[in-house]
Amino acid sequence: MQQKLTGIAASSGVAIAKAFVHAEPDLTIELREIQDTNAEVKRLEDALAKAKEELSVIKDKTEAELGADKAEIFAAHLLVLSDPELVDTVKGKITDDKQNAEYAMNEVSSMFISMFENMDNEYMKERAADIRDVSKRVLGHLLGVKAGSLATISEETIIIAEDLTPSDTAQLNPVFVKGFATDIGGRTSHSAIMSRSLEIPAVVGTKEVTSVIETGMTVIVDGLEGHVIVNPSEEEIAFYTKKREDFAKQKQEWAKLVNEQTTTKDSHHVELAANIGTPKDLEGVIDNGAEGIGLYRTEFLYMGRTELPTEEEQFVAYKEVVERMEGKPVVIRTLDIGGDKELPYLDLPKEMNPFLGFRAIRLCLEEQDIFRTQLRALLRASAFGNLKIMFPMIATLDEFRQAKAILLEEKDKLVADGISVSDEIEIGMMVEIPSTAVAADLFAKEVDFFSIGTNDLIQYTMAADRMNEQVSYLYQPYHPAILRLVKMVIDAAHKEGKWAGMCGEMAGDEIAIPLLLGLGLDEFSMSATSILPARSQLLKLSKEELETFAKDMLYLDTADEVEQRVREAFLK
Amino acid sequence: MQQKLTGIAASSGVAIAKAFVHAEPDLTIELREIQDTNAEVKRLEDALAKAKEELSVIKDKTEAELGADKAEIFAAHLLVLSDPELVDTVKGKITDDKQNAEYAMNEVSSMFISMFENMDNEYMKERAADIRDVSKRVLGHLLGVKAGSLATISEETIIIAEDLTPSDTAQLNPVFVKGFATDIGGRTSHSAIMSRSLEIPAVVGTKEVTSVIETGMTVIVDGLEGHVIVNPSEEEIAFYTKKREDFAKQKQEWAKLVNEQTTTKDSHHVELAANIGTPKDLEGVIDNGAEGIGLYRTEFLYMGRTELPTEEEQFVAYKEVVERMEGKPVVIRTLDIGGDKELPYLDLPKEMNPFLGFRAIRLCLEEQDIFRTQLRALLRASAFGNLKIMFPMIATLDEFRQAKAILLEEKDKLVADGISVSDEIEIGMMVEIPSTAVAADLFAKEVDFFSIGTNDLIQYTMAADRMNEQVSYLYQPYHPAILRLVKMVIDAAHKEGKWAGMCGEMAGDEIAIPLLLGLGLDEFSMSATSILPARSQLLKLSKEELETFAKDMLYLDTADEVEQRVREAFLK
Repeated sequence: MQQKLTGIAASSGVAIAKAFVHAEPDLTIELREIQDTNAEVKRLEDALAKAKEELSVIKDKTEAELGADKAEIFAAHLLVLSDPELVDTVKGKITDDKQNAEYAMNEVSSMFISMFENMDNEYMKERAADIRDVSKRVLGHLLGVKAGSLATISEETIIIAEDLTPSDTAQLNPVFVKGFATDIGGRTSHSAIMSRSLEIPAVVGTKEVTSVIETGMTVIVDGLEGHVIVNPSEEEIAFYTKKREDFAKQKQEWAKLVNEQTTTKDSHHVELAANIGTPKDLEGVIDNGAEGIGLYRTEFLYMGRTELPTEEEQFVAYKEVVERMEGKPVVIRTLDIGGDKELPYLDLPKEMNPFLGFRAIRLCLEEQDIFRTQLRALLRASAFGNLKIMFPMIATLDEFRQAKAILLEEKDKLVADGISVSDEIEIGMMVEIPSTAVAADLFAKEVDFFSIGTNDLIQYTMAADRMNEQVSYLYQPYHPAILRLVKMVIDAAHKEGKWAGMCGEMAGDEIAIPLLLGLGLDEFSMSATSILPARSQLLKLSKEELETFAKDMLYLDTADEVEQRVREAFLK
Repeated sequence: MQQKLTGIAASSGVAIAKAFVHAEPDLTIELREIQDTNAEVKRLEDALAKAKEELSVIKDKTEAELGADKAEIFAAHLLVLSDPELVDTVKGKITDDKQNAEYAMNEVSSMFISMFENMDNEYMKERAADIRDVSKRVLGHLLGVKAGSLATISEETIIIAEDLTPSDTAQLNPVFVKGFATDIGGRTSHSAIMSRSLEIPAVVGTKEVTSVIETGMTVIVDGLEGHVIVNPSEEEIAFYTKKREDFAKQKQEWAKLVNEQTTTKDSHHVELAANIGTPKDLEGVIDNGAEGIGLYRTEFLYMGRTELPTEEEQFVAYKEVVERMEGKPVVIRTLDIGGDKELPYLDLPKEMNPFLGFRAIRLCLEEQDIFRTQLRALLRASAFGNLKIMFPMIATLDEFRQAKAILLEEKDKLVADGISVSDEIEIGMMVEIPSTAVAADLFAKEVDFFSIGTNDLIQYTMAADRMNEQVSYLYQPYHPAILRLVKMVIDAAHKEGKWAGMCGEMAGDEIAIPLLLGLGLDEFSMSATSILPARSQLLKLSKEELETFAKDMLYLDTADEVEQRVREAFLK
C-alpha cells in the first residue's frame, strides 16, 4: 500500500532505496530463582566483559572514522559498565535475592534510568539514554539475542527504526546507508545531529515508520520537506529522483557563490555570517563563503571537562578563530550556561524552569571570576583580528552596564600590564528577552550592536518551550508579534547609527529572509550550510520593494497568513 | 547589639515583643548494630503510634479552630505514617541489616525526601516537606527528644525560626503570638500564607534571624516593609509603636470606604475588583467593598480530588458566586492548569519548563471534553448574574478564535435544549504572554475585554521564573518594557471601544497604581485585603495629571528610576 508519512526534516536531501527495519531484539525477561548464585554472577561478569569488548571496538572504529569527539559517548558507555554502584547492586540481587542475572540487570538499570530521567536537566537525561543503551547490550548477551547489526549492511539502504542509539549510528556506513527515518526524536536528538554530520537525508519523529514499513519495501526519504513515502508509485519515484537531482544541481549552483558578495537586486549589501561552536567549525565556515562569524558560542569550551578552562586555553581558541577569519568580523558571545546545561565543576542550582532561570549573564555577573577570566581572554585575542563581544540574556539596562563596566575594568588592567588590546572592539548584546526588544530604543543608546537571538526570543514571546513537542506549534517565527519586535530592534539600532543582526535559526530561513531584508536587518548569521542558499535567495530580492511588503505583514492576523503571503510572492 | 535585618514582607502589620527562638531539636543519629531486632521493630512501632496520636490531636484542634481545609495537611501526614512502602522499608533495614530504628528511619525518609524533591513539580516537592515533618516527629520519639512546643506559649511573643512547618503553625495561638520571622521561605511558602491567614505580622526569608536572635531579646517585626529590628533602641520602639498604631488607625480609615465608589479627584471612575479562588473567599470580597470579581481562578475546583468535577458541581460553584455578587461583574477564568500543578486523575506530561509548557488554554483546546464541561457550567450560571468568561494563556489569535467557537457551540446546544443562557456574556482573554500585548490591536478587534495577568506577563517578558529566588530581582513590574506593554494593551482596547483590566499583583501595588491610572486602566483586580488601601489611594489621585507623568515613565532607563520618581511624586 502506498502511503506518505510526515515527520521532522532532520537532514536535507532526498534518498530512494529499499528499507531495512532495524528492529529492537526481543528482550523479554522472566524472573527465575537461582540455586547456584556464584555461577550466575559469573554469567553476568561474562556478559559485561563481552559488552566491554564490543564497545571498545566500536569506540576505536568511531574514533578512526569520525573523530575523537564522536567517540566520546562510547567512553561514557564503558564507564557505565564499570560503575560499581550499578554492577554491585545487580550482583547483590543475584546473591541475596537469588534472582537470575538478566532480571536483576533489568531491574537495576530500569531503576537508574528512571532516576536519571526524573532529573530536570538535559545532561542527566542523556545519562539515562546511555544506561539504556548499555543495558540492552548486556541483556542481549545474557539472553543470547543478537541485535541485527547495522554494520553488515552492504547495499543501498534506508534505515527505519524507532530511534537510533549512538551505538547504532556509529555503525552506519554512509556509502550504503542512503537515508533514515525514525518514529521518535526532534531536530536536536542524537540521531538528527548525526544525520546532518554524516550528510545523510533523514526524517525523524514520524511516530509510525516502524509500524508501517517492512524490510524490503521501497521507501523515499525527503529530508527537505520531512516526508517519508512508502511503496511509491512510478510517478513518485520519477518525481523524487528529479528532486534528488535538482537538489544536487542546486548545491553545485550554490557552490559558485562562495566568493560572491551578498548584494540584493537593488544594490543593497547585507552581511551573511556563520554561527559556530568551536574552532573546528571554521573549515565549514570558510568553505561556505561566510562574510564573518555572527555568533561564536563559547559554551563548548566549558563542556565535557572536569574544571574551568584557563584564560590561556580560551585565548588560544579565540585567537585561532579571529586569525583564521583574516580581519572579517567575529562576534563572540560570552558564556551562556545555566540549569539545563550542567557543568560538573560548577555547582549550578537545580531549577524548576531552567529556561527562565539563573543562567548566562545572570550567572556571570554573580560568578565574576569566571566572567573576568573569559573577558581577559577575549580582550587579549582582540589584538589578532576583528573581534566583537556580545552578552547573552540581557534583560535590563543595569545588567548591560554592569557587564560592560567589568569588561572595561579588565581592559584597563591589561593595558596597564602592557598587553595589547584592540581599541576598536564593538560591545553588543543579544536581544533574546522580550523586554529588550520592547525597550530597544533605551539599549540602542549604549550598545554598539544588537544580535537578535530568535530561538529564545520566540520561545519567551510565545511562552512556549521550543524543546517541548506538545507546544512546539507555538514556535512561530512569522507571528506578527515577533516581526514587530524584530522591527523595533532594527529601527532602534538604526536611529542611533548602530547595526542589527540576527543569529537564530530564523536568519537562514527562506520564508523569513524576504521579511528580514524588508525590515532592514544588516547581518544574517546562520549555520554554515545555510549561507549559500541564503545568498542565492538574497541576490534575487529587492530591498526597496520588500519594505512595504514587510510592513504589511505586521498587521496580518496570524503566522500562517504571513507564511502564505510570502510563499505566494517569493517562493512560487 | 542593635541590628536591623531585611527579609520578605509576608504579612502586614507591626509587632513588638520578646523573641522565642523555636530551635530544631538535636536529632543526631548514630548507627548501632541491633541484636534483638524484634524489640527494635517494636520500638519503631511505638514511636509511630505516638506520632499518630499527636497528629490526630493536632488535626482535630486545627479543624475546630481554623477549619477543615487547614487541617487537611495533617491528614496527609497521617497517611505518610501509614504508608506501607515507607514503614516496611524501615522495618526491613532493622530486621535484615540489624540497623537501629532511628538510623533506619532517617535513611529511608531521606531517600524518599530526595526522591520527591528531585521531581520537578510543586505538588511532589510538598510531599517531601510532609515526609520531613513527619520523620522529625517520629525521630523525636525514638530519641526521646522533646521538641519545644509552640502550643505552651502564654505571653506575648515573636517566634523566630528557620522555618515553620505546618505542625508548628497549627500550634500558634494568635492571642500570644504577635509576629514571626524566619530564615527561609518566600511570599508563597506555607509559613507566609499562614501568617496572612492568621493576620500575624511576619517577615520571612531573612537568611539569619536564628543566628542573630536569642530567646528573650526584644524584637520588632515590621511586616509592612520586611524588616526585623533586634534589640531596638527606645527611639525605635517609640517609632514602631507609633507605626503600629498608625497602621491600626489606617485600617479603621480604610474600613470607612467599604461602600464608596472608586472615583478619582478629577471624577474619573475605575473599578476595583477582587481575585478569588473559591466561593469561600466571597465573604472577604464583600467585607472589603469590591465592585466585582476581576478574576475567579477555577483551578481549585479541580484540585484535591480524585476525579474531574462534574458540570453540575461546577455550575453550583459558579452560580453561587454570580448570585452572591448581586449583578456586579464576575470574570471567570477557564481552567489554568499544567505541568507544575498536577491533577492525579489527569495524565499531564512531565515538563522541563512547565511555565513554558502544555497548560491552560493549550491543554483545554486539546482535552476538549474537560473544556466543554466547564463552558457548559459557566453558560448555565450566566443566567443568574453578570458573568464574563476569559481564556488564560492565549498566545495567538487562532487559539482565541478556537476557544470562542467552542464556547458558542456549547451555547447553541444549551439554547436548543431550552436551557437559559445570558445573551450578554462578555468573552475576553488574559494578556499574560508577550505576543498578545505586542499584537494587542489584532486581538482587540475580536475580544470583549482584556485582563492583564502581570504575574506571568512579567516573568515571560523578563524571562525570569518568579518562583526562582536567584532571578527574582528580575521580577520588575516597573520596568519600562512592562509599562509599555501595559500601555499597548490599554490603548488597543480603547481604540476598539473595549475595556482593559489587570488581575496580577501589580494592580494592587501602591507604586503601580498611579502609573496604571495614568495609562488608562479601567479595572484593577487584586486580593480582597488590598482593595480598601487602593481605593483610599485612588481617591486622592487625578487621572489627567497622571497621564503625562505615566508617559514620561516609559522612557526612563530602569525600573528603579521609575520607582524612585513615583515615590517622590506620590508617596512622600
